[in-house]
Amino acid sequence: MNALLIVAHGSRKKESNDEVIQLARDLDAIEESPFDRVLCAFNQFSGPTVDDQIAELAGQGITDITVLPYFIAAGSHVVTDIPERVDQARERYPAIRFNLAQHLGAFTGIKRLILEAFSGR
Amino acid sequence: MNALLIVAHGSRKKESNDEVIQLARDLDAIEESPFDRVLCAFNQFSGPTVDDQIAELAGQGITDITVLPYFIAAGSHVVTDIPERVDQARERYPAIRFNLAQHLGAFTGIKRLILEAFSGR
Repeated sequence: MNALLIVAHGSRKKESNDEVIQLARDLDAIEESPFDRVLCAFNQFSGPTVDDQIAELAGQGITDITVLPYFIAAGSHVVTDIPERVDQARERYPAIRFNLAQHLGAFTGIKRLILEAFSGR
Repeated sequence: MNALLIVAHGSRKKESNDEVIQLARDLDAIEESPFDRVLCAFNQFSGPTVDDQIAELAGQGITDITVLPYFIAAGSHVVTDIPERVDQARERYPAIRFNLAQHLGAFTGIKRLILEAFSGR
């Protein structure tokens, strides 16, 4: 059983956080997804936290968690905060395998995504 | 002559801003792009600003500028700051057509991008 945990910055605006929650729900509902579960967490300004969601997934018998820093670029959250939380989770849940993915902005498909979005121009 | 202006939050970390600058350069170098020019600007913590880059593009004879808020979710920068700057630019450069695009997180291709990135699992 594996899971994707999408970790976003978090905003004081509820609507902004709701976008990420909806993305996780949409991905969680996709049958042919490589993940059995998809959840999201927020670094600031909103729960659930990374720790909350890892505890939730551990309680569901998930054995493999991919953490996706859902960030445009590698600022301090991507470089420091999220890796530290993943390291702490590795110590706390030695039976779970954690995979820290690249942040979204480093995905090679981003350029194609942008060009395709405007290709009808 | 049209241009894409990628507007990112900006970071105190130079490496973070450099990622966005490199993305803009890479897109600018793609021959089959729908845009004659691709530049980026930052909302905070770094230049060039949106105003700087619009002035630059206006000086190059660009007549059509698409502004892409390069943000994960619609916080205050996406909802308020960037639209205000685009409105000001519309008043200042009436001969240029401005198109304010959706922020990156609202692109319909984001889900596919994420699933494809992990599809080898």
